[in-house]
Amino acid sequence: MRSAVKVKAVWALLLIILGLIFVRILSRPSDAVTIYVITPTFYRITQKPELVRLCNTFSLVENIHWIVIEDSVNKTDLVANFLSECKVSSTHLNAVSPKDKNYHIKGSNQRNAGMQWLRENIVKGQQRGVVYFADDDNTYDPRIFNEMRNLRQGATWPVGIVGGSSWEGCITAPGEPSRIVGFWAGYKPRRSFPIDMAAFAINVDLLFTYPNASFDYKHVEQQEGTLLSQVGFKSALELEPRANGCSKVSQI
Amino acid sequence: MRSAVKVKAVWALLLIILGLIFVRILSRPSDAVTIYVITPTFYRITQKPELVRLCNTFSLVENIHWIVIEDSVNKTDLVANFLSECKVSSTHLNAVSPKDKNYHIKGSNQRNAGMQWLRENIVKGQQRGVVYFADDDNTYDPRIFNEMRNLRQGATWPVGIVGGSSWEGCITAPGEPSRIVGFWAGYKPRRSFPIDMAAFAINVDLLFTYPNASFDYKHVEQQEGTLLSQVGFKSALELEPRANGCSKVSQI
Repeated sequence: MRSAVKVKAVWALLLIILGLIFVRILSRPSDAVTIYVITPTFYRITQKPELVRLCNTFSLVENIHWIVIEDSVNKTDLVANFLSECKVSSTHLNAVSPKDKNYHIKGSNQRNAGMQWLRENIVKGQQRGVVYFADDDNTYDPRIFNEMRNLRQGATWPVGIVGGSSWEGCITAPGEPSRIVGFWAGYKPRRSFPIDMAAFAINVDLLFTYPNASFDYKHVEQQEGTLLSQVGFKSALELEPRANGCSKVSQI
Repeated sequence: MRSAVKVKAVWALLLIILGLIFVRILSRPSDAVTIYVITPTFYRITQKPELVRLCNTFSLVENIHWIVIEDSVNKTDLVANFLSECKVSSTHLNAVSPKDKNYHIKGSNQRNAGMQWLRENIVKGQQRGVVYFADDDNTYDPRIFNEMRNLRQGATWPVGIVGGSSWEGCITAPGEPSRIVGFWAGYKPRRSFPIDMAAFAINVDLLFTYPNASFDYKHVEQQEGTLLSQVGFKSALELEPRANGCSKVSQI
């Protein structure tokens, strides 16, 4: 009886493997869009749990590659061990921040290192990809990654609990969910790009079209616009709205 | 050519379905251990993102049932909508806390409502199960659920960043990873149960053996011991150590 069960188990496994091979052949992976998530990180007591949360979330997303850049002279064992245990495809980099403590901007050198890695490791035009900057102290609903996966040049959506407000982000015209007409933002709403780092993603091809586009340490609270203006957007109004015409602001 | 691809796709699907049916038959679901996670929750601006984080984590755990109990007179749309979108198997309950603001304990009525639901909705002895109390403001590594899944009566493991310390929890004897000899705890280390709510889980059968076991509003900072002593443990030394003899304290 036990050996009969074993034979059935082997058959079941064979059938599954055969089926999966068929599906794999048919799914044409060259069409898949990879989401490259760039995450600067630095040591503090909550670093590990924050990274665990991100790993859990990203584990639920298909075709994702996580680029984690430490703010440190050398890569630490903490992050290296964490990434080796996290099942998400990842790249581990490090880059130091400027020593000058007058800088009130964090993460620029790390995000630039992430973009540089993409420029050096992706073959331009061979792989459809999206770049997203996800800081390690935010919460992400896994569904947002499917919202950004089909963008043409760049997309935006509202985010919750930011800038002292329960939400911030794009607003579309009534009856025109594909056209952004304005933004709700607590901080400097008249900026050309009044959006948070977590509120936009861009086509990876733009990194090659604009090979010098980068973050800096000059434009306080305007790093989003600093990058987006360098990759060809005149204002955030040109971004493609997501989350059902920017309407799916979470009830929070 | 297109129709040939379609035929192949149908075959692939059929093979997968057949394989899965075999696996389902062979896996004997009666042996599966369900982890019942009891989570009290209350409204504040970060409630929704905290719940999203938990949903993401629990999505990675097999055989889990999430009992979410709101501290409210009625169930709110926020939590109801959230649970309807979260793919984790769940039950939505509500229970109010005492009005008296002198109580410095939170969550007891909600955790008791969760246990009551289990006593009323599980057929005693028919389903192997584990009960775990997971607050909505903590971070959980999904691997901890497999650590607790095979417990006999109750198990414990170290947790990070609690009670003002980078970690707290059980310590085993050198060379004896299955025997707890002490605990590291910042707050009242001489308590019989010097462990955090997130540091233990018990066999669901204990809820039937001890049908009156419950949390209260009297024993400040000692709710863990209040419950564990009522379900038959004399001290936390009797719990089964997990996480490789309590040694896997995360590097944080």
